Amino acid sequence: MCNTSFSERGDKETVESGAFLMPKYDRDGLIVAVVTDVASGEVLMVGYMNEEALKRTIETGEAWYWSRSRQGFWKKGETSGQVQTVHEILTDCDQDALVLKVSVAGNGATCHVGYRSCFFRKITAPADRKVGLERVESEKVYDPSEVYGKG
Amino acid sequence: MCNTSFSERGDKETVESGAFLMPKYDRDGLIVAVVTDVASGEVLMVGYMNEEALKRTIETGEAWYWSRSRQGFWKKGETSGQVQTVHEILTDCDQDALVLKVSVAGNGATCHVGYRSCFFRKITAPADRKVGLERVESEKVYDPSEVYGKG
Repeated sequence: MCNTSFSERGDKETVESGAFLMPKYDRDGLIVAVVTDVASGEVLMVGYMNEEALKRTIETGEAWYWSRSRQGFWKKGETSGQVQTVHEILTDCDQDALVLKVSVAGNGATCHVGYRSCFFRKITAPADRKVGLERVESEKVYDPSEVYGKG
Repeated sequence: MCNTSFSERGDKETVESGAFLMPKYDRDGLIVAVVTDVASGEVLMVGYMNEEALKRTIETGEAWYWSRSRQGFWKKGETSGQVQTVHEILTDCDQDALVLKVSVAGNGATCHVGYRSCFFRKITAPADRKVGLERVESEKVYDPSEVYGKG
């Protein structure tokens, strides 16, 4: 696995308009990945990849991330079944961010709280100056407490 | 400006399912913001906000960021006219990422290279093992060299 290789970072013009992937990682060696539903375009989650996770994703066609909290590789769906098949990967002008267009297997949810998208709440007008949140997804796809047990 | 205030971070349950915004910033004091077109859902760019930029965005309804390269506030569109009117802001389960649904003023482009979206290239199958890029936007909205001059 992982015979894929990326080109060295070039000058600004090459990075911004060139025909080769030259990812820019942050000081932890990570690049941010925005994950969208290939059918609806909805943003499902934001994850982070190191070089190896990005290579595994490209080579296998299924999304791999680097878990910052667990400091380890994380194949999305390995335990939950919510595997992400990657249909397209986009990069931005300075190549320090990715967009993954995916379809989700299993129960079709992405969020461990049970919703289709991790972005299931929107900001509401401040009540008493504290900014509030309101759900935009009316119901959960599944109840995680029934799948994984309470707590 | 900026009478808005955010709640202190609560426990996991409160952050993940609660009704108050409790943003989690990285060690540079920033939170990632994914910007999408409110009409098409297309991902336009990824930016970063500090607390003050997020407050300005909420209060003014126009997107403010923190420029990591320039280390300063950046009101999108201030020089280019590509101002982003913010229709909705979503946050994710652990509240360390935002999605902004915006409409873009001026010439309607977001990317300084001239394209509608900063994500104007997709990854192609490796040629000679180096991962390539291919444009997904067929043409630029504008030619930045004509607007800002060459170089």
